[in-house]
Amino acid sequence: MQKLVFVLLFCSISNFLLAQDSKRARDIGLQIGVLQAGKFNAITDVAGVKVGHTTLVSGENIRTGVTAIIPHAGNLFQFKVPAAVFVGNGFGKLSGSTQIAELGTLESPVILTNTLNVAEGIQGIVEYTLSQQGNEKVQSVNAVVGETNDGNLNDIRGRHVTKQNVLSAIQSAKSGPIEEGSVGAGTGTVCFGYKGGIGTSSRKLPQSLGGYTVGVIVQTNFGGVLQIDGVPVGEELGKFSFSDKLLNNVDGSCMIIVATDAPLDARNLERLAKRAFMGMGKTGGIASNGSGDYVIAFSTAESLRVPHQPVQPVIEAGYLHNDFTSQLFMAAIEATEEAVINSLFAAKTMTGSNGRKIEALPLEKVIPILKKYKRL
Amino acid sequence: MQKLVFVLLFCSISNFLLAQDSKRARDIGLQIGVLQAGKFNAITDVAGVKVGHTTLVSGENIRTGVTAIIPHAGNLFQFKVPAAVFVGNGFGKLSGSTQIAELGTLESPVILTNTLNVAEGIQGIVEYTLSQQGNEKVQSVNAVVGETNDGNLNDIRGRHVTKQNVLSAIQSAKSGPIEEGSVGAGTGTVCFGYKGGIGTSSRKLPQSLGGYTVGVIVQTNFGGVLQIDGVPVGEELGKFSFSDKLLNNVDGSCMIIVATDAPLDARNLERLAKRAFMGMGKTGGIASNGSGDYVIAFSTAESLRVPHQPVQPVIEAGYLHNDFTSQLFMAAIEATEEAVINSLFAAKTMTGSNGRKIEALPLEKVIPILKKYKRL
Amino acid sequence: MQKLVFVLLFCSISNFLLAQDSKRARDIGLQIGVLQAGKFNAITDVAGVKVGHTTLVSGENIRTGVTAIIPHAGNLFQFKVPAAVFVGNGFGKLSGSTQIAELGTLESPVILTNTLNVAEGIQGIVEYTLSQQGNEKVQSVNAVVGETNDGNLNDIRGRHVTKQNVLSAIQSAKSGPIEEGSVGAGTGTVCFGYKGGIGTSSRKLPQSLGGYTVGVIVQTNFGGVLQIDGVPVGEELGKFSFSDKLLNNVDGSCMIIVATDAPLDARNLERLAKRAFMGMGKTGGIASNGSGDYVIAFSTAESLRVPHQPVQPVIEAGYLHNDFTSQLFMAAIEATEEAVINSLFAAKTMTGSNGRKIEALPLEKVIPILKKYKRL
Amino acid sequence: MQKLVFVLLFCSISNFLLAQDSKRARDIGLQIGVLQAGKFNAITDVAGVKVGHTTLVSGENIRTGVTAIIPHAGNLFQFKVPAAVFVGNGFGKLSGSTQIAELGTLESPVILTNTLNVAEGIQGIVEYTLSQQGNEKVQSVNAVVGETNDGNLNDIRGRHVTKQNVLSAIQSAKSGPIEEGSVGAGTGTVCFGYKGGIGTSSRKLPQSLGGYTVGVIVQTNFGGVLQIDGVPVGEELGKFSFSDKLLNNVDGSCMIIVATDAPLDARNLERLAKRAFMGMGKTGGIASNGSGDYVIAFSTAESLRVPHQPVQPVIEAGYLHNDFTSQLFMAAIEATEEAVINSLFAAKTMTGSNGRKIEALPLEKVIPILKKYKRL
Repeated sequence: MQKLVFVLLFCSISNFLLAQDSKRARDIGLQIGVLQAGKFNAITDVAGVKVGHTTLVSGENIRTGVTAIIPHAGNLFQFKVPAAVFVGNGFGKLSGSTQIAELGTLESPVILTNTLNVAEGIQGIVEYTLSQQGNEKVQSVNAVVGETNDGNLNDIRGRHVTKQNVLSAIQSAKSGPIEEGSVGAGTGTVCFGYKGGIGTSSRKLPQSLGGYTVGVIVQTNFGGVLQIDGVPVGEELGKFSFSDKLLNNVDGSCMIIVATDAPLDARNLERLAKRAFMGMGKTGGIASNGSGDYVIAFSTAESLRVPHQPVQPVIEAGYLHNDFTSQLFMAAIEATEEAVINSLFAAKTMTGSNGRKIEALPLEKVIPILKKYKRL
Repeated sequence: MQKLVFVLLFCSISNFLLAQDSKRARDIGLQIGVLQAGKFNAITDVAGVKVGHTTLVSGENIRTGVTAIIPHAGNLFQFKVPAAVFVGNGFGKLSGSTQIAELGTLESPVILTNTLNVAEGIQGIVEYTLSQQGNEKVQSVNAVVGETNDGNLNDIRGRHVTKQNVLSAIQSAKSGPIEEGSVGAGTGTVCFGYKGGIGTSSRKLPQSLGGYTVGVIVQTNFGGVLQIDGVPVGEELGKFSFSDKLLNNVDGSCMIIVATDAPLDARNLERLAKRAFMGMGKTGGIASNGSGDYVIAFSTAESLRVPHQPVQPVIEAGYLHNDFTSQLFMAAIEATEEAVINSLFAAKTMTGSNGRKIEALPLEKVIPILKKYKRL
Repeated sequence: MQKLVFVLLFCSISNFLLAQDSKRARDIGLQIGVLQAGKFNAITDVAGVKVGHTTLVSGENIRTGVTAIIPHAGNLFQFKVPAAVFVGNGFGKLSGSTQIAELGTLESPVILTNTLNVAEGIQGIVEYTLSQQGNEKVQSVNAVVGETNDGNLNDIRGRHVTKQNVLSAIQSAKSGPIEEGSVGAGTGTVCFGYKGGIGTSSRKLPQSLGGYTVGVIVQTNFGGVLQIDGVPVGEELGKFSFSDKLLNNVDGSCMIIVATDAPLDARNLERLAKRAFMGMGKTGGIASNGSGDYVIAFSTAESLRVPHQPVQPVIEAGYLHNDFTSQLFMAAIEATEEAVINSLFAAKTMTGSNGRKIEALPLEKVIPILKKYKRL
Repeated sequence: MQKLVFVLLFCSISNFLLAQDSKRARDIGLQIGVLQAGKFNAITDVAGVKVGHTTLVSGENIRTGVTAIIPHAGNLFQFKVPAAVFVGNGFGKLSGSTQIAELGTLESPVILTNTLNVAEGIQGIVEYTLSQQGNEKVQSVNAVVGETNDGNLNDIRGRHVTKQNVLSAIQSAKSGPIEEGSVGAGTGTVCFGYKGGIGTSSRKLPQSLGGYTVGVIVQTNFGGVLQIDGVPVGEELGKFSFSDKLLNNVDGSCMIIVATDAPLDARNLERLAKRAFMGMGKTGGIASNGSGDYVIAFSTAESLRVPHQPVQPVIEAGYLHNDFTSQLFMAAIEATEEAVINSLFAAKTMTGSNGRKIEALPLEKVIPILKKYKRL
């Protein structure tokens, strides 16, 4: 029932991208990990978080886009969220990381796009922030923009993303189900030699473990030896980094955004971010030399919201004691792993610049493999 | 045939610990990863590296020990090796990390022991270094000592490891096959709710990828949801962190030492170390709050050996270009994953302090599970 | 058309800025530190380094600009220089830091500008790199752009710096003497409550200490308690952070670029960068909460140049042993201290947005103070 | 009057070390910085902090000791304080840093001693903690031990500090005035070529800036070009690093402990620690290659005390907003600078191992220099 609503909701937006047969990992029966997913199995299960895409598919060469993640519905600059960055492998152009590390806060939407359009991502965030009501005197904004390189399918040197595309992604952001696969910042990405893209997943802890939710969204564009829920799919397909079929395609990046409603301060959010990197590892990613693998984690907990202009110097806050973080770490690992797999399941075969064609993960071959290995 | 030699070699040393039925992951047919193991499938496959254990099993309460890893056969202080540390989760007492980070070198053996005997580990290294020929004027030595907490089985508050035990481990270090399981620093450790210990593995790249070797040794004492080569063993056994059977046993640590003969400088060794953390993640480890998960990586390459007293200010060196590191990263991930599994396979059921009994991983149940999931 | 205005504008401005009465600290007899300055007492004393400015002074509200630092005359992307970043205080928008940290190299000019024009700085670098001969296939470039907030004097919300301004700064870069004060990225900055700007200085070690040169350029926009060569000038003038005259003006940032011809690898360059932060401290800077204090250090040594496309995996290099770095550290401290003072000496009183007027450091008062304290 | 009490108090302990003529910087009229000192101008001005020394001066060769800093009077393990470490230069053997960074807390006294007795420092802390009432089940303690190398005057290879010496320093710790100079861990240290040692200082912010106190204690053993309140004393005396008189004596270390009652969380404590490094730089220190320059900062604020066994997962806390940290940064810089100078003023000429004699800073020459430069 929930599934039906999901499909209907998105048909109007991008019905050609999200065909009826689009599957998520859970739709075919995969159960990654031991914890329960949230309602939408998406980062938007963390209350208040919204996601928007701008997808740019034009002519033969333009295959790129923008994905915006909005931590809460209010004025982000005036009410910042605690946040942290973990750098898995820093061959990337993430902007905004040092201020997050120093101040422990995120004050803008997180924008994902391609490697050569980070500047336009920043321009979009700056424009958005300066023009927002209440920000009339703002003279500084820490724009957080991540990227992966979609140059395989996209005319990346053309730098086709505009500031306006970024604003559109922000403005179209919504809660609820999230479109996955070759959309937004994932439009032109490649993962494990197959079409990658956007994926999402979440975990909701049982009340006995705190009841908190951890949600993850990823932009997948990396290599390694694909494993799906532990099954050696890459090996079975004969296509993995340094294998004959994928000799020169080990690189690429992965942007991972982790949201939680647990009251984690910046220090514990950095720890949470590090676990997302483990989740990426469980899919077979190797964080190769050329990969920009970054995790940005933030907490939406009201008790830790940081006002830009504090009423008084000492802020009262409620934060989670270290001893109760392990279950959240587990949730981040699981949700990241599943988000990566979801990105592969949702992405469709695409032909792009220079006529290059990247096949979707061949589910018709993958499902039998998963069955052979008793995962289905 | 080689196997046979291996067993004979160790029988005399510790024939009660290493019974005939001791199995390594490969012995039952597991093939973790896509790369080839080295000759001994051990950290000692990196030429020059030696490993020694002191095992302390005494009375009802003493279940601890020391493991020493020696990077090369010469005077380590006078000829340092490039090295780096990656902190997966820093709830641990590793000594020596800041100097490695600052100077990029390791100048001592690496000692592993229990949490409350780090001081004695340092004393052993200091004694060893000061008394070594050629070090008569040395007034400073950066002792690198890692630990995990064996308090489940060992009377850890008794602090039973002595400086002499440390020196013995150093002096007994040898190349070739390495004793695994409940020996040395792994004598009293617990991993995934089962008896953990020392494990090792290696990968040798094909000549086309450089021909280098990456070797790993681990001291396993951590929790999570055990996966063996992707198979959900922990779930099948119903024993994993936050499950009914293992509710209060998610914590514990993992020390990981990575050696390579590839000419990686300190910066690239830190990157290599980070991949070992991914390998630990692939076994189902979650780097829980209470875990001290550290990776120490060093290179034995002669071209990067750092003299304590340089003949001239500018050192000529040959180092590997960034572009050729990805295959080493993959090797570190695989070898770490397999080393953890080897530690579980080798460790035997042990009863220790307060009568606590920790079962060995029940291979008689695990092998059918691995077969069920078509990994054997 | 705007271009023409710009050029004319610049001509008229800069000849009065570089007028006879412009003084550097040494011109009045100050001798900061114990080491000798290089020929030009500028970052350009490091052979091959070039600096260019674009100064934007227009109407009543535009007071901003761009400064470009070029590490060497060749193709920077194809022949990268070892580099490192140290974050003194990360309340800033520096782009490119994570890739420098990961790969240890700088592959672009360093651009300095204002806080809200970092995006345009990136665009300029991307344009410059993609269009350079030999880079026809480049699909990724790590643009390094630093900033300080010139919103006191400049209509910063107007974001008046363009990609073309950035390209102009790059193209106009030259060796030899450098224009200091209210030029380029220092056009609208404020330091210790006075007009700040661009400053530079260098140190050349005697041959007995290696003969290497360390050069520094700074963009000064920060607060604290001004000390000039140890003399408490800020106190004497009654104008310092948290004093009555400067109650609300403690914040602001400092970008510091350090170049050397010493063969320092990335690790030792990070250490060198940290010493520049000490030099900033010696001027009385406090790295206040709102300050973005970053140091970028690079080495121009040919022996450590990193080819984008290596001929073979192992690179032969000559690097300086740790034991010979202390004298370089001292040089970086001294040159940074003097560069900050030079920026204040050179900057002229400026009136800018909203009619705000920032006085130049009153040398007519400062010189007597320096004399009183026997520094002149 | 307060002065008198101070002298009387310590006479019994070490009346030969603290002669009547012992001077602190303020006693001769120096006013370092613009903020006010606390009552004792010592780290103990932060309520609850206690300091104890064990001084080992024996025969011709033993010149070493232990200094203990106790954050609060309760059970430190059960009620941890937020803390952070900043590594200025990591050529040192500080233990405990990674756990502080990970968990953001300090759970033990901080022990300072010599380079080769860090192990005994750890043993002392472990013994102290395990045997404390309420800690009967403790199986893990993060011992924080810093050191500098007193091998110039002390037979450091003899490792003369015992666990009992460490316990004595902890047990003798008291509030109020602190003995400075050649005592405790500063017994055998050398700074700027003169006798160094222990120094302390504090700053109390006016109520308008929050009213908080920042206290610092240092163990000085480093080189550079001595400046006292900005005056070039090292140059005037002709004795500085790389000068003819001090050619081979640039190295050595500085341990800096910063305490505050301001409610700073671990992240802001790390920032505070970084400013102490700036204060060290203002004395002319260069953080030379061989120096182990570490800052440990902690907050005694009750509102941020971290229970080892929390009553509930979410902790209510009051923490200082970032915007109010700058004044604390300034206080840390000033107090560190003055603490270093105090260590030099208090230390007396000492003859030690191998007949080496290190002169005290010749105040009879220094005071005229300070007068010449109008600082007195």
